[in-house]
Amino acid sequence: MKRTHYNGELRLEHVGLEVSLIGWVSKKRNFGQLNFIDLRDRSGICQLLFSEQFSDQIKPVRNEYLLHVHGKVVERKDKNPELPTGDIEIEVSSFEIVNTAKTTPLIIADETDALEDTRLEYRYLDLRRPVMQKKLIMRHQITRSMREYLDQHGFIEIETPMLGKSTPEGARDYLVPSRVHPGSFYALPQSPQLYKQLLMISGFERYYQFARCFRDEDLRADRQTDFTQVDIETSFLSEDEIISMMEEMLVKLMKEVKGIDVQAPFLRLTYREAMNRYGSDKPDNRFDIELQELTDVFENTEFQVFRSVIDSKGSIKGIVVPDFAHISRKQIDAFTALAKKNGAKGLVVLKALDSDLTGSARKFLKDSEVKALYERLRLKENDCLFIVSDQWLKTCTVLGALRNEIGSQLHLKHKDEFSFLWVTEFPMFEYSEELGRYQASHHPFTQPMQEDIPLLDTDVESVRANAYDIVLNGYELGGGSLRIYDNHLQEKIFELLGFSEQQIKDKFGFFIDAFQYGTPPHGGLAFGLDRIAMILSESDSIRDVIAFPKNANAKCPMSKAPTPVDQSQLDELHIVISDSK
Amino acid sequence: MKRTHYNGELRLEHVGLEVSLIGWVSKKRNFGQLNFIDLRDRSGICQLLFSEQFSDQIKPVRNEYLLHVHGKVVERKDKNPELPTGDIEIEVSSFEIVNTAKTTPLIIADETDALEDTRLEYRYLDLRRPVMQKKLIMRHQITRSMREYLDQHGFIEIETPMLGKSTPEGARDYLVPSRVHPGSFYALPQSPQLYKQLLMISGFERYYQFARCFRDEDLRADRQTDFTQVDIETSFLSEDEIISMMEEMLVKLMKEVKGIDVQAPFLRLTYREAMNRYGSDKPDNRFDIELQELTDVFENTEFQVFRSVIDSKGSIKGIVVPDFAHISRKQIDAFTALAKKNGAKGLVVLKALDSDLTGSARKFLKDSEVKALYERLRLKENDCLFIVSDQWLKTCTVLGALRNEIGSQLHLKHKDEFSFLWVTEFPMFEYSEELGRYQASHHPFTQPMQEDIPLLDTDVESVRANAYDIVLNGYELGGGSLRIYDNHLQEKIFELLGFSEQQIKDKFGFFIDAFQYGTPPHGGLAFGLDRIAMILSESDSIRDVIAFPKNANAKCPMSKAPTPVDQSQLDELHIVISDSK
Repeated sequence: MKRTHYNGELRLEHVGLEVSLIGWVSKKRNFGQLNFIDLRDRSGICQLLFSEQFSDQIKPVRNEYLLHVHGKVVERKDKNPELPTGDIEIEVSSFEIVNTAKTTPLIIADETDALEDTRLEYRYLDLRRPVMQKKLIMRHQITRSMREYLDQHGFIEIETPMLGKSTPEGARDYLVPSRVHPGSFYALPQSPQLYKQLLMISGFERYYQFARCFRDEDLRADRQTDFTQVDIETSFLSEDEIISMMEEMLVKLMKEVKGIDVQAPFLRLTYREAMNRYGSDKPDNRFDIELQELTDVFENTEFQVFRSVIDSKGSIKGIVVPDFAHISRKQIDAFTALAKKNGAKGLVVLKALDSDLTGSARKFLKDSEVKALYERLRLKENDCLFIVSDQWLKTCTVLGALRNEIGSQLHLKHKDEFSFLWVTEFPMFEYSEELGRYQASHHPFTQPMQEDIPLLDTDVESVRANAYDIVLNGYELGGGSLRIYDNHLQEKIFELLGFSEQQIKDKFGFFIDAFQYGTPPHGGLAFGLDRIAMILSESDSIRDVIAFPKNANAKCPMSKAPTPVDQSQLDELHIVISDSK
Repeated sequence: MKRTHYNGELRLEHVGLEVSLIGWVSKKRNFGQLNFIDLRDRSGICQLLFSEQFSDQIKPVRNEYLLHVHGKVVERKDKNPELPTGDIEIEVSSFEIVNTAKTTPLIIADETDALEDTRLEYRYLDLRRPVMQKKLIMRHQITRSMREYLDQHGFIEIETPMLGKSTPEGARDYLVPSRVHPGSFYALPQSPQLYKQLLMISGFERYYQFARCFRDEDLRADRQTDFTQVDIETSFLSEDEIISMMEEMLVKLMKEVKGIDVQAPFLRLTYREAMNRYGSDKPDNRFDIELQELTDVFENTEFQVFRSVIDSKGSIKGIVVPDFAHISRKQIDAFTALAKKNGAKGLVVLKALDSDLTGSARKFLKDSEVKALYERLRLKENDCLFIVSDQWLKTCTVLGALRNEIGSQLHLKHKDEFSFLWVTEFPMFEYSEELGRYQASHHPFTQPMQEDIPLLDTDVESVRANAYDIVLNGYELGGGSLRIYDNHLQEKIFELLGFSEQQIKDKFGFFIDAFQYGTPPHGGLAFGLDRIAMILSESDSIRDVIAFPKNANAKCPMSKAPTPVDQSQLDELHIVISDSK
């Protein structure tokens, strides 16, 4: 089956050419004895004109029939400026029906009103929609661009095991029963973390892998049973060197895939600054609203809610939304509910009207405080002010969530705008109420910042790590850290985390052993490929950039996986299904 | 930690330069107060010279310590022509110990006498051996070269599901219990076959994927729990077009990775010719010995063994091994055992000595037959002749196995010689004694050859498929086929395979449905990446080209996977381990 051109590439310059095309019937319409067909392939659509002589032969042809067509490119009278090929059409001289098609359960067009489960059940048809093909092709372009950069910079792709060891730390493992070793299980990898560090110990120096990773967690819009991680590790580089290199890779990516010039270096915010300004460790800075410090404004407040927070060394902050004073009681209730959902005890909402503030909390504020707020926040008529008072982290987090919600409601997040930034200097430890001890914010192999190492003995909570996240449009695209390569420091960290020697051995056994043989300084990071593809293709869900995703119930509506299996399969694996289900 | 150069790249032209290097101590030796160290990184080794002033500082340094070294490149007096950097050494001006190392449980050198389980337990050290690093780096170069070709030719890499549906056809599945759907299981993919065909139905036209595939079979030297498949599918191309394209990719690969000019088109043998000439559907044609047709020579034989085979329309063939008449009784017994292991009833061995043949079967042969053998086989003094008589396929297979064994024993298979060929026109069906019916030689979606379609009604066994294997040095590197895209033909094939409508629905349900919506003609193939890497890196085992392989017991000696897991993990998955273990 020969074609001379793809459907989407024909232009005025091809007029007069005899061409052969292959494609699916996207639309068919007739004017009297004339028939027009839009023929579609992966490159686009081209209009075919069938003269009277074909009126019988074309009769049975319906949407999604596959045609092989021969004819001449001619200029169209009624040009279609919407279509890249809209200036021309093909005067068909002959054609064959290559294959027929039943009526499709969903319309093959960019716009669809099909339910997502229908789209997933007939995914092979859903993927025929040009908009979906473009997304998967863009995903491929993204991987090509990143791979090319890594290849050019001496990185070696190395595949790590898919059937590994289950480690109870972290998320829930997917398990794979062993037939050969009854009662034993492999675990599908949550990430190649240990392996990539081992490869540094092996001296590979620069490693990458587009790695499939698995976490058996409950699914959300941007979660799947498994995901693809662009996993990177280097030896001998500083945090700055790693960050610069990754910026260069992302600048290249944005240029090649989106045609956009992104400026490096990217904004770098410390964790503390990100929280203070945006109330998030993955701030979306495409819109201006920032958190404002108000603790000092209320130093002498008599408003009991603020007073108690100030007395307990808490933090009062606010955000100002311009021209938002018109919001209704119902909207205020919704924002308050959102604040409470994020752990706030309440939310103070004040509107700047008539050079005063109105709102239920107004009566607790002194006029001098109102004046101070006007000055500090440069309030203007019709501004709306949201204030949260709580412990520092809570105050930030709650206002960050409000900020995000307001950004969405006001359509301030433009999908075609791309804002990268780094968040650095993450705290090394966080206290777990649940465990009654500190735990590593990233993982216990993360390197504490050199200047903070003395604090390990005096002020654990203030120790910052050489850990960094890359953020795009409010999504964490990826993150990483330098790793500890000194045995003594590693032991100290384990002690601080409350691990006994036996526990260390059980949890990290062979990995710790490996550290004794000339481990190089190393560090790296991992990007979430699905998320990058989602954002760059301006999609709403990662399911749109995965060829055959699971639904929110971890099921594939097409293949119906997971399914019951034959008893003989279970017998061979020495497992039985428990009755307790 | 700055380096100016990699250790392996310094040459005479660098003499006089001040350099900084990083690396592991590969060897340390002293002459009086002078110390010499071979410093190793992934690029190679460089000799360091430590003058007297360092004799104390260097004392604690042992093998596999990691050093950061500064000094001047000088010309060596005692040059080492074995080493690319053997003309120079570094006069060290200062150095730091970056990290220390315990004595390694295996020697970090190309040659090792460590047991494989030790190598696998300390794989991170085994992978420090330069020979192992080169293998994994070559594997990466192979993937780069193939990816580049595919990218340049409009192929799109698309990831297919890792958690799929268990299908009892084919090899044994690895199962993954579902937590969300108690009693149901995902299966890890044996290949993306269905998905890649669905992607053609979606209109992607050219797809590839470096896909991890899983088969729970017992392991051998060239088997692992999982393997990497270079999975390729195209629409609208003929078998010849697919084959030519793949040849182009392999020619590029051999040039780029091995520096070898391979000539395309490769030899193409039909299945029948491959069996007739080499006794194998994956012939190693690096050595000349070929099977010779002898059935007609024995047309009138009175040797009962041959007589009965001829009467039952069987086949008599032989191979001639020059200068092999010296083999002992013991060797003959071993070859006979090998023949029997491959299903022969016996093996006729005749030696060409004194213009006659000797051997236990000589007495059953007429002199005219001996003469005819001399003529047909152009026998020379000291040739050794092996004859097998049986049904055609058995005769071929047995002689093929002998041929292979003799090729190995006589060292005729040179690892640095690379011979590609295609085997085509595979039979579409084979009769399964076990199932009492025909089954598809490849899979039931394989396209029968157009000219053989009439034979579907008359002579099923003679129907050939548009299926093709690519063979390198006697290994099947990959294989594929055109696929059926016509519903009626597909139904006919299923009927021939004895499937009822219900069975078709149960086994291939959603996949068959997909074929009704304008399926394009399509076909493709898959390469075994591990095997390509093994052969090109001239390794004996695929374990040498996998970073962290399982041993023959499907276990990872390093992580100890698979392992028992916590009861709570099993509870969540609603499974219990059966007592029957």
